[in-house]
Amino acid sequence: KINGERLWDSLMEMARIGATEKGGVCRLALTDLDRQARDLFVKWCKEAGCTIRIDKMGNVFARRAGKDNSLAPVMTGSHIDSQPTGGKFDGAYGVLCGLEVIRSLNDMKYETLRPIEAIIWTNEEGSRFAPAMVASGVFAGVFDLDYGLGRADQDGKTMGEELKRIGYYGDDEVGGRPVHAFFEAHIEQGPILEAEKKKIGIVQGAQGQRWFEVVFTGQEAHAGPTPMKVRKDALVGAAQVIAAINQIGHDNQPFACATVGMINSSPNSRNVIPGKVFFTIDLRHPDDKILSKMAAEAKAACEAAVKKNMLEMDFKEIWYSPPVKFDQDCVAAVKKGAEELGFDNLDIISGAGHDACYMNRVAPTAMVFIPCEGGISHNEIENATKEDCRDGCDVLLRAMVERANA
Amino acid sequence: KINGERLWDSLMEMARIGATEKGGVCRLALTDLDRQARDLFVKWCKEAGCTIRIDKMGNVFARRAGKDNSLAPVMTGSHIDSQPTGGKFDGAYGVLCGLEVIRSLNDMKYETLRPIEAIIWTNEEGSRFAPAMVASGVFAGVFDLDYGLGRADQDGKTMGEELKRIGYYGDDEVGGRPVHAFFEAHIEQGPILEAEKKKIGIVQGAQGQRWFEVVFTGQEAHAGPTPMKVRKDALVGAAQVIAAINQIGHDNQPFACATVGMINSSPNSRNVIPGKVFFTIDLRHPDDKILSKMAAEAKAACEAAVKKNMLEMDFKEIWYSPPVKFDQDCVAAVKKGAEELGFDNLDIISGAGHDACYMNRVAPTAMVFIPCEGGISHNEIENATKEDCRDGCDVLLRAMVERANA
Ligand SMILES: NC(=O)NCCC(=O)O
Ligand SMILES: NC(=O)NCCC(=O)O
Repeated sequence: KINGERLWDSLMEMARIGATEKGGVCRLALTDLDRQARDLFVKWCKEAGCTIRIDKMGNVFARRAGKDNSLAPVMTGSHIDSQPTGGKFDGAYGVLCGLEVIRSLNDMKYETLRPIEAIIWTNEEGSRFAPAMVASGVFAGVFDLDYGLGRADQDGKTMGEELKRIGYYGDDEVGGRPVHAFFEAHIEQGPILEAEKKKIGIVQGAQGQRWFEVVFTGQEAHAGPTPMKVRKDALVGAAQVIAAINQIGHDNQPFACATVGMINSSPNSRNVIPGKVFFTIDLRHPDDKILSKMAAEAKAACEAAVKKNMLEMDFKEIWYSPPVKFDQDCVAAVKKGAEELGFDNLDIISGAGHDACYMNRVAPTAMVFIPCEGGISHNEIENATKEDCRDGCDVLLRAMVERANA
Repeated sequence: KINGERLWDSLMEMARIGATEKGGVCRLALTDLDRQARDLFVKWCKEAGCTIRIDKMGNVFARRAGKDNSLAPVMTGSHIDSQPTGGKFDGAYGVLCGLEVIRSLNDMKYETLRPIEAIIWTNEEGSRFAPAMVASGVFAGVFDLDYGLGRADQDGKTMGEELKRIGYYGDDEVGGRPVHAFFEAHIEQGPILEAEKKKIGIVQGAQGQRWFEVVFTGQEAHAGPTPMKVRKDALVGAAQVIAAINQIGHDNQPFACATVGMINSSPNSRNVIPGKVFFTIDLRHPDDKILSKMAAEAKAACEAAVKKNMLEMDFKEIWYSPPVKFDQDCVAAVKKGAEELGFDNLDIISGAGHDACYMNRVAPTAMVFIPCEGGISHNEIENATKEDCRDGCDVLLRAMVERANA
């Protein structure tokens, strides 16, 4: 059994780095706050006797030796970057569960056959640098290193530059080494476990995602003397699309999600017809066919708005993460852990993408979900109970030990 | 007759201050660039023998003495602040026409009975500081001084602070002195004169305006695991309103204009359901009754979106500028000037607000419009011909001299 108090204390200490007034966290990828959070994790892992390695994507690997260190490790981990108005648990919980598993094994003086690694994956959120899960993606060979290091934020700063600036551009090549199994513990970030009164989600896989960037260009003109019928209002076009995207989500139930999360309008002046609007589209569905159909509907909505408002359009798909099905043995190990501990559990599909989705391509992978309050995440009020945090980590420990001795 | 080359050269020299790559001007109110433009105008006016006075709203009055300086002056002027992506002519044309009238009277050694004043009005655009025409509004007693000095930009800096910073918080009280007549020359900023092949617009008045600020608050949540039906998406609500506002413009033809020029969405992250959106609404109509009806329709559209998307709303009308009818004698003076010079002219209603709209409350007022290319303004490509600029200024000169000798 892990130490629930210690896990909670570590979570709360980590949450101070980038703490917001409303009780959340703003710790964008590769900022100074991200560095502080990494430094703290590295310090704790060293104190727990781990060796630390860092790769060229800034992924941090804390290794606890096993009986046979020539064998491929069992890994766990998540991310410590957050949304601009994020919560204390999204990501940090999975990272600190890795640390807690190692600390608990130390307490028990338990030696696994295989080495164990607890990991921080760089820039999982995709908020400062799009897309999401970039660095686990490079580890898994989904993206090449240049692509990963070249991702730029809104100010044009790249991940490569920022990794060097904060001192986390490591020596190790990214990926290309055998991994026996990967597990990730995470809050659900949705309402299902809470609604169903289940403590543990046995994650079967994740829905697919498609991300788009759209720029509409019309013509800036004066909001007063410019007749309605000659206007080329890029924001009116974008608004029609945003309403349509929302409708696409509703039309493709069950399961579909469709979101415009970001919009920048220019020149953004009260009495000027907007001449240029940038916005993003995030489409999700567990069924790849329906996801493709939603993408076609989204594109058609953009084309209709362009035509109706006499605009020009730049429409780019910037990310496609297909639906994921996790490894049956690893999923079974999670299920077994939950059952042995007597926890009510539920098979579930992740609505969010996770580093586990990419790790699943290069290693047998599964995830452990715990409930979060009201199903709310990507929000400063995100919350989870101390007990659920403890219990999810206990399930993780069992699944990892099982695989680490196999 | 005025000197068209000199007027054009001054316009082009002024346009260098804040010049943008695309040939426009970015000279936001009370920035360092605004100060440079003011300094240049003041220098030119002093060279033309004027005395300069500055009031507490930063309005600049350059006075050319008349035969009887105890009489109320005839004034002209406009603004030199611009939109973020504005043009060379909007405002600056009217300011430099004032200077050119004075220079021409000097050339002709012509002494008017009444003194003449050429004016820069502070912050006419309402882009950095809302609403528009703030400082002429204080001069005209529409707003009190505290309101004017207290207008804040997006960073919370007030007009009072910024006036002091750039050294244009003057000694004079604002307004409260007799004005015999006020004239403003301006580009039309719309397509009518060009379409009708007329050189001069005899401005009869201006349409009414109502400006609103709306904040929608929903709930930030994860774009992946949050089911469509529980979402409180503030941006979807705003999008529905933006589409509805555009429809209100179309539904209230002829004449109606309805625009959402500004939108800020928060947290503005691709995979977060937007929790808070700020946007503005600008409604215009020459008929006050229809304008009120449009305002009611806009409010109803906001309320419908709030209900549909489970949002909360803060809805504020921040500005109401009723339809304006200019003084018949001043309008006749403009018409007479245009006719004497043999210029094709057209009675026209201004689609934009102008400082003349507020001056009309405290002095007999009229305006002179000249065409602009394609009717485009509030755009870096805004353009007007040298000949039209000259001819409009000639009409202004005649109207002013007529009133200054009356
Ligand atoms: N877990 C999580 O918030 N991941 C970010 C990527 C996504 O939007 O699904
Ligand atoms: N002339 C002009 O652009 N004025 C700004 C106020 C308005 O939007 O009408």
